Amino acid sequence: MNSIGKIFKLTTFGESHGTAIGGIIDGCPAGITLDFNAIQLELNRRKPGQSKLTTARKETDKVLFLAGLFEGKTTGTPIGFQIKNKDQKSKDYSEIKDAFRPSHADFTYQKKYGIRDYRGGGRSSARETANWVVAGAIAKQVLNHLQSQNPIKINAYTSSVGNIYCLKPYQELDFSKIESNIVRCPDPKYANKMIALIARTKKEGDTLGGTITCVAKNVPVGLGEPIFNKLQAQLGQAMLSINSVKGFEYGAGFCATTMKGSEHNDLFNEDGSTKTNLSGGIQGGISNGMDIYFRVAFKPVATILQTQETITKNGKKTILKPKGRHDTCVIPRAVPIVEVLTAMVLVDFYLLHKINSNCS
Amino acid sequence: MNSIGKIFKLTTFGESHGTAIGGIIDGCPAGITLDFNAIQLELNRRKPGQSKLTTARKETDKVLFLAGLFEGKTTGTPIGFQIKNKDQKSKDYSEIKDAFRPSHADFTYQKKYGIRDYRGGGRSSARETANWVVAGAIAKQVLNHLQSQNPIKINAYTSSVGNIYCLKPYQELDFSKIESNIVRCPDPKYANKMIALIARTKKEGDTLGGTITCVAKNVPVGLGEPIFNKLQAQLGQAMLSINSVKGFEYGAGFCATTMKGSEHNDLFNEDGSTKTNLSGGIQGGISNGMDIYFRVAFKPVATILQTQETITKNGKKTILKPKGRHDTCVIPRAVPIVEVLTAMVLVDFYLLHKINSNCS
Amino acid sequence: MNSIGKIFKLTTFGESHGTAIGGIIDGCPAGITLDFNAIQLELNRRKPGQSKLTTARKETDKVLFLAGLFEGKTTGTPIGFQIKNKDQKSKDYSEIKDAFRPSHADFTYQKKYGIRDYRGGGRSSARETANWVVAGAIAKQVLNHLQSQNPIKINAYTSSVGNIYCLKPYQELDFSKIESNIVRCPDPKYANKMIALIARTKKEGDTLGGTITCVAKNVPVGLGEPIFNKLQAQLGQAMLSINSVKGFEYGAGFCATTMKGSEHNDLFNEDGSTKTNLSGGIQGGISNGMDIYFRVAFKPVATILQTQETITKNGKKTILKPKGRHDTCVIPRAVPIVEVLTAMVLVDFYLLHKINSNCS
Amino acid sequence: MNSIGKIFKLTTFGESHGTAIGGIIDGCPAGITLDFNAIQLELNRRKPGQSKLTTARKETDKVLFLAGLFEGKTTGTPIGFQIKNKDQKSKDYSEIKDAFRPSHADFTYQKKYGIRDYRGGGRSSARETANWVVAGAIAKQVLNHLQSQNPIKINAYTSSVGNIYCLKPYQELDFSKIESNIVRCPDPKYANKMIALIARTKKEGDTLGGTITCVAKNVPVGLGEPIFNKLQAQLGQAMLSINSVKGFEYGAGFCATTMKGSEHNDLFNEDGSTKTNLSGGIQGGISNGMDIYFRVAFKPVATILQTQETITKNGKKTILKPKGRHDTCVIPRAVPIVEVLTAMVLVDFYLLHKINSNCS
Repeated sequence: MNSIGKIFKLTTFGESHGTAIGGIIDGCPAGITLDFNAIQLELNRRKPGQSKLTTARKETDKVLFLAGLFEGKTTGTPIGFQIKNKDQKSKDYSEIKDAFRPSHADFTYQKKYGIRDYRGGGRSSARETANWVVAGAIAKQVLNHLQSQNPIKINAYTSSVGNIYCLKPYQELDFSKIESNIVRCPDPKYANKMIALIARTKKEGDTLGGTITCVAKNVPVGLGEPIFNKLQAQLGQAMLSINSVKGFEYGAGFCATTMKGSEHNDLFNEDGSTKTNLSGGIQGGISNGMDIYFRVAFKPVATILQTQETITKNGKKTILKPKGRHDTCVIPRAVPIVEVLTAMVLVDFYLLHKINSNCS
Repeated sequence: MNSIGKIFKLTTFGESHGTAIGGIIDGCPAGITLDFNAIQLELNRRKPGQSKLTTARKETDKVLFLAGLFEGKTTGTPIGFQIKNKDQKSKDYSEIKDAFRPSHADFTYQKKYGIRDYRGGGRSSARETANWVVAGAIAKQVLNHLQSQNPIKINAYTSSVGNIYCLKPYQELDFSKIESNIVRCPDPKYANKMIALIARTKKEGDTLGGTITCVAKNVPVGLGEPIFNKLQAQLGQAMLSINSVKGFEYGAGFCATTMKGSEHNDLFNEDGSTKTNLSGGIQGGISNGMDIYFRVAFKPVATILQTQETITKNGKKTILKPKGRHDTCVIPRAVPIVEVLTAMVLVDFYLLHKINSNCS
Repeated sequence: MNSIGKIFKLTTFGESHGTAIGGIIDGCPAGITLDFNAIQLELNRRKPGQSKLTTARKETDKVLFLAGLFEGKTTGTPIGFQIKNKDQKSKDYSEIKDAFRPSHADFTYQKKYGIRDYRGGGRSSARETANWVVAGAIAKQVLNHLQSQNPIKINAYTSSVGNIYCLKPYQELDFSKIESNIVRCPDPKYANKMIALIARTKKEGDTLGGTITCVAKNVPVGLGEPIFNKLQAQLGQAMLSINSVKGFEYGAGFCATTMKGSEHNDLFNEDGSTKTNLSGGIQGGISNGMDIYFRVAFKPVATILQTQETITKNGKKTILKPKGRHDTCVIPRAVPIVEVLTAMVLVDFYLLHKINSNCS
Repeated sequence: MNSIGKIFKLTTFGESHGTAIGGIIDGCPAGITLDFNAIQLELNRRKPGQSKLTTARKETDKVLFLAGLFEGKTTGTPIGFQIKNKDQKSKDYSEIKDAFRPSHADFTYQKKYGIRDYRGGGRSSARETANWVVAGAIAKQVLNHLQSQNPIKINAYTSSVGNIYCLKPYQELDFSKIESNIVRCPDPKYANKMIALIARTKKEGDTLGGTITCVAKNVPVGLGEPIFNKLQAQLGQAMLSINSVKGFEYGAGFCATTMKGSEHNDLFNEDGSTKTNLSGGIQGGISNGMDIYFRVAFKPVATILQTQETITKNGKKTILKPKGRHDTCVIPRAVPIVEVLTAMVLVDFYLLHKINSNCS
């Protein structure tokens, strides 16, 4: 339930305001020298307080590795890690202790388990995604190790915020510009519009959603398992595991529904590549060597700085007046999360594929 | 790889033109009297040749149960079943034996496995979905048994074909009309437009995609497991396992990305229900008792009755001139598939939830 | 629940007197040419009625492959198979319909599920093991394919029947003689004593247990995963899944408990092999390249041809007078079952090990 | 690989001399008040240095819970925990860095992974079992919660050390005496003999093996799943996961092989209990309500305080002169490990059984 992956498998624990969050990575191949700085850099990309766009909360997203490494290398045994939470004891949770915040998981956790750690959302908080970043940052390095020639490159970027869309197709974007602005949209023109919209919405005490597009290049042919373990199904499951995600599409996605077969079919070149790539790099659940690309939809942040009516655990009406520091738009901080989940899915299929590869 | 579900678990086998397809359902509770007629009716809804809209191919979708039942009841042991394929030996496959059909799985299977059963698409054929219908039709009956008061109702329908959309929200539709027309859109006005579009496109030798909307009512609060086994993630994974599916969204879906938090949040009534349901009945990965609804995007059928250039296994150019009888649009036949997968996901979470339910 | 293996995974169904038994093998590598005759020969070794020692019942243990093969080769897709049961409708089951046979699973199935297919023991019958033989016979061939130089050799034999023990250590036995007699003990002197004991016991209407020893040679170093997936733990679990098995030991086994460390330790030769092999070829859950050997204990057959008191479903006393044809001692027929389970465990670890092997 | 259990699932990490060991318990039911003192007491039973019989090494087996608990209760979310290792940096490992200790896992880890954390045995050290004790101590409490009337009682004890056997059957022993002596044999006469043997062997610089018997009382009818998830197979797998275990038998075990069916069969009383219990409380893989009992064989400790010849990583001969403080006999400290693994297996089956229980 709290695990992802079949071979490269992450299991996690942790509540937003407990002692620590953390995880265990099982199935990481042995003998890989890890770049710990690169792992921390990915955590920094997700961290709150990294720019004026994100919540001003400071979290100590410092990962501590406890096992599975020896002299800087993976040993093939499980990698245990943890990220301490800052002491939050002093904080006042009286408001949300008994009240259910609208469009949060407070109600469903309470009803399912009969008990919940209400502090900061507990297990349902997106703080959990820091665990994923640790594992996914390692997954990226394992992919590099497995395919050091022509390494797989995974880039996600903000493709829309509210109704501001980056209108250029990904092929025309320069991914090296993704980190050049705080909204993580590689086109500066759209980036500036998005930043302005977020600033405006923040003043209204309201929040925004948006979309993230992710592209994986140099994925070899053959990753993915047909029927119930299709590559797109695992990518979709991973993305739909992110808090706030409401939709997933790959290749031509929902647009494909209005195309005719004669328009949508990708014709082959003689080398097995295709002239177009409306399929998004996957056929029959298996990668075909073309770019894999997909788009993920995020709803607006549920915590708004406006008064909202709600109910208590006992079904009484009450009023919520949120205060504190929250994100107006999580899309920029979700960009690394989309990337690391993609890396985890790909490394899992890569390792699975090794089982079969020598026999054909 | 060929299994779905954690507790109510289906494992399948079978190629389109092999001896038979079939499966094993493990984890079905004991003591449930099955309605075999209802299972066959679901198979008939999926069957080719059922209307002028679908391919004229006739398949013998007759399920044979081999084990796991005694005197008409489930015994708690695995339910083995098979559906025989008609003898296809006489057919001529010389055209696709060596050529890769564009936007089919021929290329990826060949590259992944070094061998493929090319007849009718082999394992990648949608014939496999008949197995899912058997298991899902049983899943529906198990759900009825588990919650016989206020039974869970799962209805899917065609919400668009090409650019013809059923513009009414699902709340205004009469689901009892879904089976009243051959395109399975409950609104006759849109249904007729869709049917006309399909007829027109068929004459052109071209094909169409579309969307299916699915609604599950009376799902109790508490189904779904947080983090990596969220209800929406499992529904998404199941839907993305269907051949031709390119996207999945639930609740407000991609539209949610352009809404503000103040618009999107679902405020509570005093009984714990919500005034709106943009969340689609799921919060934090767990059902909240409201309707669960989602939409699935299908690309147009890849097999078109037009000449297409392609390549052979050896990378030589060749020309494909498809003949035979193929669907112009699979959406109507995919409606029962969406329903049965939904039933399988829900029954699995229902049984998982029983583990926890007595302890809180 | 009805599956074994993580990569090379068998899932089975079937009751003794239902329509058929069968299974699905998922994860078999592609491109392997199967020897169907060899599979049938393994089934014949397990089959009832093969000698005067075994039950005179005739079963049609003819396997039919339904999917996963193309032109005689594995395709990487699931291998579906079935073995039909002979029509048993005419038989009279009135005696065991309501009564619980002592030391059978009738009572526990009835209590667990509230229903049971009582005919011939239903799912709890050892007829199920024919499914295992099919999968394990394929596993043997996959192992040969994976390591065609210096192929892994798995030999099991009857090492005791009742209190007649084959007193020679396995190293002194000629495994080519295992099939030379009907009790499957490679030493003719002990074989004859065992055969005589079985004949004598049969006359008394009583039954016998015994032990099977299994030896796997040429297993490469590195199979097995530490902690909860140790090679010996998976072998033990597989063996304890066989009906009637009461114990498992490997290497020096229970004898090791009375040895001192200085006696039990296996000292190394310079090539990494060990001078002794009391460890049984496994250290820390991982194969070390020496012979893997273990011993499996079988209780006497529960069905005896003597009158026994028992109770009915309703807790009333009743008398059982078994008739019909039953095995006096199942050990000879269990020899191939021990081998095929061993092959399944080894092939699973072999494939798992490939994941890690290129990275170190 | 590093996980045990299907519903109540423990995943672990940690090397003997790394920063910490720890684990994640997924699937623990919500709302259970934990007795933390009881957990620590179980850890103390396993701890080195607890008596003159065990190694004088002191380990800080203090468990720290990081998540999954709120106000002393389980929340249904994963329970993360860790046990810090004492700082070992100063210690000298030069002797075992390059040499393979006989009958240890040094050789197989090195060959499998190409790298190993040699300090104190790393991942292969029995220090890992402290993680199991934490999870199993919680499992015991969950079992008590689930069946608070007539609670399941699990008692293990030392039934032999070397060739000193506790000759009384378990039914004649007073389990309240297990903790009354340092060898954990409930009969003082045999306990004293065992203690004397251990003292004598210690002086010789040699080591001892032995057996542990475990009895679970009040297990309800119906736990266990037929075919590949039999109760005895999971118990066997769990026990064979313990370092040094060479064998497992339940009920009459290996002795059953020399009995006749007429002697071995357990006849029923009218209430469904049986007059004898040679079956060991399990029929067809499912508990029958009688005592479950089994016996586990441990080889002698591999680390002896005698000079031994061995080889280095590079295949050169070398001499090992072990020093330091090691157990002469681990049986007394393994008693709680056998108990907690039993508790984990039983709670897993108990929760699984709830899925089916309302449907029959």
